[in-house]
Amino acid sequence: MAKDQKVIIVGAGLVGSLWAILMARRGYQVSVYERRGDMRSAGFIGGRSINLAMSDRGWKALEKAGVSEKIKAVAIPMYGRMMHSEQGQLTFQPYGKEGQAIYSVSRGGLNLELLRIGSQFDNLRYYFNHPCKSVDFRQKTIKFEDKIAQKKVEASADLIFGADGAFSAVRSSLQRLPRFNYAQNYLDYGYKELHIPPGPEGQHLIEKKALHIWPRGRFMLIALPNPDGSFTCTLFLPYEGHEAFEKLQTDQDIEAFFVKHFPDALALMPTLLENFHQNPTGNLVTIRCNPWHFEDQVLLIGDASHAIVPFYGQGMNSGFEDCTILDEMMDDYQEDWSKIVPDFSQQRVKDANAIADLALRNFVEMRDLVADPKFLLRKKIASHLQDLHPGKFLPVYSMVTFSHLPYNKALSASQAQDQLFEHILALDGIENNWKNNPEVERIFLQWLKEQ
Amino acid sequence: MAKDQKVIIVGAGLVGSLWAILMARRGYQVSVYERRGDMRSAGFIGGRSINLAMSDRGWKALEKAGVSEKIKAVAIPMYGRMMHSEQGQLTFQPYGKEGQAIYSVSRGGLNLELLRIGSQFDNLRYYFNHPCKSVDFRQKTIKFEDKIAQKKVEASADLIFGADGAFSAVRSSLQRLPRFNYAQNYLDYGYKELHIPPGPEGQHLIEKKALHIWPRGRFMLIALPNPDGSFTCTLFLPYEGHEAFEKLQTDQDIEAFFVKHFPDALALMPTLLENFHQNPTGNLVTIRCNPWHFEDQVLLIGDASHAIVPFYGQGMNSGFEDCTILDEMMDDYQEDWSKIVPDFSQQRVKDANAIADLALRNFVEMRDLVADPKFLLRKKIASHLQDLHPGKFLPVYSMVTFSHLPYNKALSASQAQDQLFEHILALDGIENNWKNNPEVERIFLQWLKEQ
Repeated sequence: MAKDQKVIIVGAGLVGSLWAILMARRGYQVSVYERRGDMRSAGFIGGRSINLAMSDRGWKALEKAGVSEKIKAVAIPMYGRMMHSEQGQLTFQPYGKEGQAIYSVSRGGLNLELLRIGSQFDNLRYYFNHPCKSVDFRQKTIKFEDKIAQKKVEASADLIFGADGAFSAVRSSLQRLPRFNYAQNYLDYGYKELHIPPGPEGQHLIEKKALHIWPRGRFMLIALPNPDGSFTCTLFLPYEGHEAFEKLQTDQDIEAFFVKHFPDALALMPTLLENFHQNPTGNLVTIRCNPWHFEDQVLLIGDASHAIVPFYGQGMNSGFEDCTILDEMMDDYQEDWSKIVPDFSQQRVKDANAIADLALRNFVEMRDLVADPKFLLRKKIASHLQDLHPGKFLPVYSMVTFSHLPYNKALSASQAQDQLFEHILALDGIENNWKNNPEVERIFLQWLKEQ
Repeated sequence: MAKDQKVIIVGAGLVGSLWAILMARRGYQVSVYERRGDMRSAGFIGGRSINLAMSDRGWKALEKAGVSEKIKAVAIPMYGRMMHSEQGQLTFQPYGKEGQAIYSVSRGGLNLELLRIGSQFDNLRYYFNHPCKSVDFRQKTIKFEDKIAQKKVEASADLIFGADGAFSAVRSSLQRLPRFNYAQNYLDYGYKELHIPPGPEGQHLIEKKALHIWPRGRFMLIALPNPDGSFTCTLFLPYEGHEAFEKLQTDQDIEAFFVKHFPDALALMPTLLENFHQNPTGNLVTIRCNPWHFEDQVLLIGDASHAIVPFYGQGMNSGFEDCTILDEMMDDYQEDWSKIVPDFSQQRVKDANAIADLALRNFVEMRDLVADPKFLLRKKIASHLQDLHPGKFLPVYSMVTFSHLPYNKALSASQAQDQLFEHILALDGIENNWKNNPEVERIFLQWLKEQ
């Protein structure tokens, strides 16, 4: 049935190229239009972060597409956060139970692999250098510019997917329709990518299997490992204020800032000044909209409908989960898109809003709370409760990262767990007597009953 | 100093044409570009509601422009709400103290008057049929299409004001700049304008000096008086659901709906079916953005930066208040726009957000609470407290409508007053003993101390 259905996917980024594979496997006639050149020949162009943290939701979609093994072979597991204090002291906080990890993956490498696999399908065709100009909803047509031939082209399809990212052209067209709700919100923070090169033997100069964080309250530096022994670092800093990008103009400014706040990282960054001046300062935007679709024919997925800040490592993961859910809905609804498109749009919005909220909150956790004794105590008690009551208590981080529970359930759980720990952490002497404490147990069991 | 400064105002709607007068009075060289034709010759074209409720904030700006007397002469004071029950019973709720009123004013008549007064200035020029296409922020230029000459024109200015309404083209250009926060949110309600003609002698067939409301819980009908004896009615109704626009397709649907819910209004609406089919169903959008400016050179005012739903009657009033505040800032800052533009943008956003919230809330009050005995009791007690403690207690409606208090203070007061009345309305037998009740007095005085 699907064989004669024409599908257009706008965007050959991570979500678009994965979705193209899943649709091609089903037998649809898939055309993928991408603004940029073909990264298989041109190499990949930055602008977005170099590596990503893949977690369970992402892996599930890659398994569906049949690419997970190939990617996992070059992914680096990060079993926890390695915190760097101002004095250079290290503290390790595991992300989950033993063996659970998030994986540092190269954005470019992953995208390339997805394009390579996609190109093996006879019924999948890529059009690079084709920015989308607009969608005509009534005519079911979509206009592109062919930048090589320098002409306008028009295409039509039974189904159009906008996977064209946070600044989606498909969404821009939707936005002109009546009753389209839309919000774009920027943090007052920017980010700058920096670099720790490999050691002389190509080795990692700090712990390889961890995500490194230098939490400094209002700002932070993080580092993710790469297979070549290097680390990609990202500085998150306010644009304006006392300690802010606006204050880091000269070499002296930058060096003094790193000497003061990140001396141990500075020692590993010989190209700091070069990187700092050359790399752009990126923005951090949250995009929400509703509805994500037009009738049963146009649907936004990934960042196009729900761009989020990177602090929960769920941007790509949530986009990939869109693909998983749509693929499952194709089975559930026998590929009846008149049901799938509006249902997905309606159901998924609340999960997208939830992970957007969770990601904003996690910024506070990463840059500030991870260095807070009360927060660390809470982590320890949570882990202890998880051991004592297997299956009864799951920390929110694990729900988001190591489960496939809808994000909105994780958000509700997060609020409920905040209440639980407000009670527990108010107990006298809890710092010292939290282990096997009958009062903790009583509060927990009472709380559990109310869930 | 201002004499040689060139100012472009985009939009000759209410806010744009008022602002043009205030700037022309100061001696600036003002050019006003308007998308539509000249309503002085073409007559005014609808699309927006026919009459408006002018309150103190609006009058203050009109006084500054020297037009308040002319407008007031044809405005109709509305001293309160006239509630119509399903059984046709009438209840009158005054808006404020004796003599306080909001005024029904013709949108078109007001706009026309503002254009006429503006055209008396040698240093003010209108360009009609000139839709704005884009703003080039670096070049300080702005592109228009001259629809009569069918060519593109470019203009430049020291200052550019975007007063081009909820779907502002100036804002669209701002939106493409980095770090522009923006949200458009639609209610799931539409509105339809309807008509009650004058009586045979040109008289008003229902109370002239009131705003009529037929509150029906999830939906409502309202009516505002016109000088010719007619009323402009507006039906606010959900788009989808049990009782909704989607259910009102045929003449029979519409008539049955009015027979059931608005029998007394139906009797006065001989052209109901005609109006219902011919008039478009309007949307209700709230628009928020931040910042409202680009450097010291481009500034959004009125609906362009803060479109709100109409339920507090503050859309035009808040836009006019923008003009008042800017005019006052010209005095305070000796017309130093490098201070005025960013300061206004930063200070005014919170007031715009506050009135947006208050307007959304007032929809619930108008369509539902005004028929709620508890709400009416609260109104009575509030009025009583206001009498007992002159100057100490001002109902929020009065703060918004009959004062110039910043909207964000009214919003905070609204939350505080909710708490006060939660306590008072919880008192035993309060329905009958609210007058001169010592316990009410005690709660009130305690609350007052905490403010």
